[in-house]
Amino acid sequence: MAKEGLQLRSLVKASGELELSLAPTPTPDPAADEVVVRIEAAPINPSDLGLLLGPADLSTLKRAGDTVTAAIPERFMRAVAGRLDQSLPVGNEGAGVVVEAGSSAEAQALKGKVVGILGGATYGEYRTVKAADCLAMPAGVTPAQGAAAFVNPLTTLGMIGTMRLENHKALVHTAAASNLGQMLVKLCLAEGIALVNIVRSADQEALLRGLGAAHVCDSTKPSFMNDLVEAIAATGATLAFDAIGGGPLAGQILTAMEIAANRNAASYSRYGSTTYKQVYIYGGLNTGPTELNRAFGMAWGLGGWLLTPFLGKVGPAEVAKLRARVASEITTTFASHYTKTVSLAEALDPAVIAAYNKRATGEKYLINPSLGR
Amino acid sequence: MAKEGLQLRSLVKASGELELSLAPTPTPDPAADEVVVRIEAAPINPSDLGLLLGPADLSTLKRAGDTVTAAIPERFMRAVAGRLDQSLPVGNEGAGVVVEAGSSAEAQALKGKVVGILGGATYGEYRTVKAADCLAMPAGVTPAQGAAAFVNPLTTLGMIGTMRLENHKALVHTAAASNLGQMLVKLCLAEGIALVNIVRSADQEALLRGLGAAHVCDSTKPSFMNDLVEAIAATGATLAFDAIGGGPLAGQILTAMEIAANRNAASYSRYGSTTYKQVYIYGGLNTGPTELNRAFGMAWGLGGWLLTPFLGKVGPAEVAKLRARVASEITTTFASHYTKTVSLAEALDPAVIAAYNKRATGEKYLINPSLGR
Repeated sequence: MAKEGLQLRSLVKASGELELSLAPTPTPDPAADEVVVRIEAAPINPSDLGLLLGPADLSTLKRAGDTVTAAIPERFMRAVAGRLDQSLPVGNEGAGVVVEAGSSAEAQALKGKVVGILGGATYGEYRTVKAADCLAMPAGVTPAQGAAAFVNPLTTLGMIGTMRLENHKALVHTAAASNLGQMLVKLCLAEGIALVNIVRSADQEALLRGLGAAHVCDSTKPSFMNDLVEAIAATGATLAFDAIGGGPLAGQILTAMEIAANRNAASYSRYGSTTYKQVYIYGGLNTGPTELNRAFGMAWGLGGWLLTPFLGKVGPAEVAKLRARVASEITTTFASHYTKTVSLAEALDPAVIAAYNKRATGEKYLINPSLGR
Repeated sequence: MAKEGLQLRSLVKASGELELSLAPTPTPDPAADEVVVRIEAAPINPSDLGLLLGPADLSTLKRAGDTVTAAIPERFMRAVAGRLDQSLPVGNEGAGVVVEAGSSAEAQALKGKVVGILGGATYGEYRTVKAADCLAMPAGVTPAQGAAAFVNPLTTLGMIGTMRLENHKALVHTAAASNLGQMLVKLCLAEGIALVNIVRSADQEALLRGLGAAHVCDSTKPSFMNDLVEAIAATGATLAFDAIGGGPLAGQILTAMEIAANRNAASYSRYGSTTYKQVYIYGGLNTGPTELNRAFGMAWGLGGWLLTPFLGKVGPAEVAKLRARVASEITTTFASHYTKTVSLAEALDPAVIAAYNKRATGEKYLINPSLGR
């Protein structure tokens, strides 16, 4: 008989209410090529929060037992029209122990092992997945260490992959002291890629310099724009990945790239430099509007960037290589650090929700669904 | 001995002053493969105004003889750092009569003909150019009719060329009642391409409907966003060309494309639709910041678009075909209409500058440098 496990669910009702709950959910028995993973660690990434909390007004959060509700402002309802009245499981990735395995050799080989998994519903006690989709961790790696083996590591690898595909030679990264940002610093050092890190405090700058970062620009300093121009001129960066999204920052980066490009211009062009400058927005830490003053000529692009289309573009053989690299460096280059580990029930506590929803740089929560109901 | 001709010049001084003047300038004798054109018509396109007036504060315009000055606000000086203290000729395109020709057969064949030219310095009495760069007009076409044979016609052809290169099937265009917009309406009708026109008044809507436009959305109507979604859903447009630049419009277009794409979505995705949506900004009628609310998922791009890189991308054989098409349809598809024709001296009149700098839709000025000093 199938195991039943608790799953954290997010529901947006047509009435304008967000409801989070813990739903007892059957765990399908594994097919021959599948395994059942008891999930022991799943990170709360910024990319999970959109699905989990939607555009709810968290000042209206109310808890009743294992159910939490909050109101969604009317003006945001159009943005969630596609998910109305569907109870959705949450959690992009996680890690745990393989507790049951199908009959195939590949599945059997994973029995008892710690594996990382991707693909949703990781905020739950059990998950039945294809053995081929599991990333087996090296011996001695804990579920907490392997919990974030997909989103952030593959995103950093995707950023440098995109840089190479699109013929740029150096990178700019914002919110650069984040968990992902620290990974990118280590990865770029290992790969010999020049990286301009934009941070928002002196502490964050010190943290990245401690990791060996050569170019760190603090956007709270009066000298920020000049610092950024100098760093971009020194590195030749014409590609940026921006986790902030809102506000003037994406435009400031394009402007700094344009100023750096024009230093080498032979003659004035009314249309600006011919150096192509690209910023990809991959997050929305600032949910306000993006503001572009367009003081950067005409050779520029701004766009959304997601990991999945990148992986689709490079193809399965390359993805397998990237995954293997992540597993082998999961406690070094791709190590994550967590502020706090909470149970499924604690993850629904309004005070805890307020804490992890702050998305404070360097603070990251881990859910351990095996901590008991 | 070389002819001397007056040339309109724009100079930005390091002291923070814009100076417009008429400078007597030698006209080089034609080489074997060159001709001398007496320019009789040159349009003032929005793309000329940036070079002509820079970021000067036009409320400070002062005329003294054939010299006009205006102050440039300090905060804009960085944007013009590349052109300081250089007296620059102005005028992207124009047309006139070939009054001298080099010895080559190609040059001799143009003698006495009306030709269109591109490449700068057309706000002047004479221009020595390669015969190969002249676009000979069909018999009976006047310089005024042939004055704008490059920028707008090739831009409209470049828009549909870009649409095809980047695998879109229909277009959105803003400031669509402009001279260029009217051309695009006629061209898209001829090519069977669905076009969504965004205009800013009922009069402009009536004008385009009179030309046969099927989809016209007036952004001043309360129903604008709904109208735009319906037009985009009806046409399947996922590419827009935006002449406005500033304000929320580019983001509204992406939002409308996203809503239209999600109508056909099989299931909810937290990252929005997978339909790629692109807006190219090719003008800056609103010089304020571009504001994006990013309510359009992650599969989107915004960028600058210029004609020259497009022409470089398609190559000289295709460009020759496009040019020949323009010449043959210069009084029909690619006809331009002008509000007023002025002499070089009149073009420096502060009242005239204020008038053509309004960039009012449907109002376009022509300079005739042969009108006398």
